[in-house]
Amino acid sequence: MGDRWSLLLVAVLGQRPYRYNELHRSIEGISQRMLTRTLRGLEVDGLVRREVFPTVPPSVEYSLTPLGRTLLEPVSALADWAVRHEAEINASRSRYER
Amino acid sequence: MGDRWSLLLVAVLGQRPYRYNELHRSIEGISQRMLTRTLRGLEVDGLVRREVFPTVPPSVEYSLTPLGRTLLEPVSALADWAVRHEAEINASRSRYER
Repeated sequence: MGDRWSLLLVAVLGQRPYRYNELHRSIEGISQRMLTRTLRGLEVDGLVRREVFPTVPPSVEYSLTPLGRTLLEPVSALADWAVRHEAEINASRSRYER
Repeated sequence: MGDRWSLLLVAVLGQRPYRYNELHRSIEGISQRMLTRTLRGLEVDGLVRREVFPTVPPSVEYSLTPLGRTLLEPVSALADWAVRHEAEINASRSRYER
């Protein structure tokens, strides 16, 4: 549950429920296999709810459970940290790329 | 930097500097290859400092940089969340194992 894709998915689903294809389009770099596996892990951990709608073809919607919502605060704190220190991290990385 | 091993290593190094072998012994389930790669990533990101001591054989010590220390707060918040909600997560997992 602590891996990068799980944290990112919780942050995205913290905005609103998403259909599978919307999630795949809105998260850069995630493969369908990783998205499916990560959503399944979050569902098993009780953080995400999966609802199937009887449309034709059937569509699947993902949303945070109450337990999932409690994770939003630490996840946002981590995201804020990454944004705040992005420049320092990139500066360090460029020193190693020379 | 947001992966599970990186967050765990930052939390452990938040206690004190560690030698490589101490780290490998104190983090359950991490392979030497993953430990080396994760430490290298944290070093490149400017979060961890690597110091070589001229002992025989030479020993290598890892410690958090000032930038690394700023990550301790969100990482501890995430760790606290996991400890606080461990029972709920395990309960959910057992519902899926039946």
